[in-house]
Amino acid sequence: MAPWGKRLAGVSGVLLDISGVLCDSGAGGGTAIAGSVEAVARLKRSRLKVRFCTNESQKSQAELVGQLRRLGFDISEGEVTAPAPAACQILKERGLRPYLLIHDGVRSEFDQIDTSNPNCVVIADAGESFSYQNMNNAFQVLMELENPVLISLGKGRYYKETSGLMLDVGPYMKALEYACGIKAEVVGKPSPEFFKSALQAIGVEAHQAVMIGDDIVGDVGGAQRCGMRALQVRTGKFRPSDEHHPEVKADGYVDNLAEAVDLLLQHADK
Amino acid sequence: MAPWGKRLAGVSGVLLDISGVLCDSGAGGGTAIAGSVEAVARLKRSRLKVRFCTNESQKSQAELVGQLRRLGFDISEGEVTAPAPAACQILKERGLRPYLLIHDGVRSEFDQIDTSNPNCVVIADAGESFSYQNMNNAFQVLMELENPVLISLGKGRYYKETSGLMLDVGPYMKALEYACGIKAEVVGKPSPEFFKSALQAIGVEAHQAVMIGDDIVGDVGGAQRCGMRALQVRTGKFRPSDEHHPEVKADGYVDNLAEAVDLLLQHADK
Repeated sequence: MAPWGKRLAGVSGVLLDISGVLCDSGAGGGTAIAGSVEAVARLKRSRLKVRFCTNESQKSQAELVGQLRRLGFDISEGEVTAPAPAACQILKERGLRPYLLIHDGVRSEFDQIDTSNPNCVVIADAGESFSYQNMNNAFQVLMELENPVLISLGKGRYYKETSGLMLDVGPYMKALEYACGIKAEVVGKPSPEFFKSALQAIGVEAHQAVMIGDDIVGDVGGAQRCGMRALQVRTGKFRPSDEHHPEVKADGYVDNLAEAVDLLLQHADK
Repeated sequence: MAPWGKRLAGVSGVLLDISGVLCDSGAGGGTAIAGSVEAVARLKRSRLKVRFCTNESQKSQAELVGQLRRLGFDISEGEVTAPAPAACQILKERGLRPYLLIHDGVRSEFDQIDTSNPNCVVIADAGESFSYQNMNNAFQVLMELENPVLISLGKGRYYKETSGLMLDVGPYMKALEYACGIKAEVVGKPSPEFFKSALQAIGVEAHQAVMIGDDIVGDVGGAQRCGMRALQVRTGKFRPSDEHHPEVKADGYVDNLAEAVDLLLQHADK
């Protein structure tokens, strides 16, 4: 067992990333990562509180949860913190009418949002919808505004599909930031507000919680900056160089979620 | 006449940007900017040496010059410094085989370049070819390389077509930089090597030269960092806020190329 396992003492809540930890996304709903279905089940049978904390923004929450349930995971919509609902709340509070540069799969989450005469841009992991035409539309909306507002659902660099590494929303967010000379507001990991809302949902303090993710910067670095502990799994987008990242060091590295859960169940109560 | 005109004393060579100074690009070859055809003719009748210095990378040099000649400009291929030929030279010198993320219009410039089994990416103003699929191909090539090399033909933020502002190569270069955690090598303005090669072509020293462009950062700032003087025209992508740019101040601002040439012919010899 990992000698650093004792760092997990006193953990009472666990935030789980989804893509790359539970499953690899891909055509037909993706595939479960070996051992992860059983690992989630064991976690949920323990006294630890569990919250799923994802930057998934290609699918509605209902579709995401449906796909995970079909893969065998014990998960319900009420257990997930995702960026689209958080963004909708911000849009309503601030009277913002977005141009939506998003994937069609997540469009239903914005059904209640006025998108006429846009006064901001919301960008998410749009996949094939990141056409030049759509990017230029978003750019032109921003350039017409006196105070351009760009809201980005996460800022991930890439993720892993069964077919290979795929560009995530972050590069496209950076493209619009540079084109317009502005800074985006990020809704999702690694935004501290986002981690805090996930912790609030399970009533756990940051110092009692651990984040488990495959993204050394967005998951591990983001959670640590909020005062949480964080483990990186060697699945999903993990690359060996992550263990020598110049800025972020995880509290521990595990082969997969199953190993993380073994260690948690052994050490968390101590 | 502008009180700063005396700053042009001692100029013996002029570098002229093309898009936004000579013409606005757009469907059917674009349109000449009022007064620019005559202004170029007057400059070329004077004792001043003239070089066209462009980041145009959607068209081959032959096509670019052909379009300008049809608009009435006195210009030949031998008078133009453009990034595609400069990039080809670098590729040959370093034995690089690029994945080309470029516009079909400029592809003929790379006819002599081996693109099999790519070991670098060349990105240019690809317009509609900036699809998600093509960006992801470039990203995957870079992520497979031990020492990823990304060569960008310019890094402009946007340019003006007759139909409105359009995203240039810069935002897409930034997207790949962020996705891969790398820094691109820029071939074209504002790279000092590029300005120097334009000056060498006319045998003029930087301190004797003036750059005339519509881009406050790429043209004006870039030229000034090379020791040249630089004027910004209020045509093309010029925006009033450029005159209060936080980092770059042009030696002078003129309404268009015609006014710049008036001032040059009046003051350069003094």
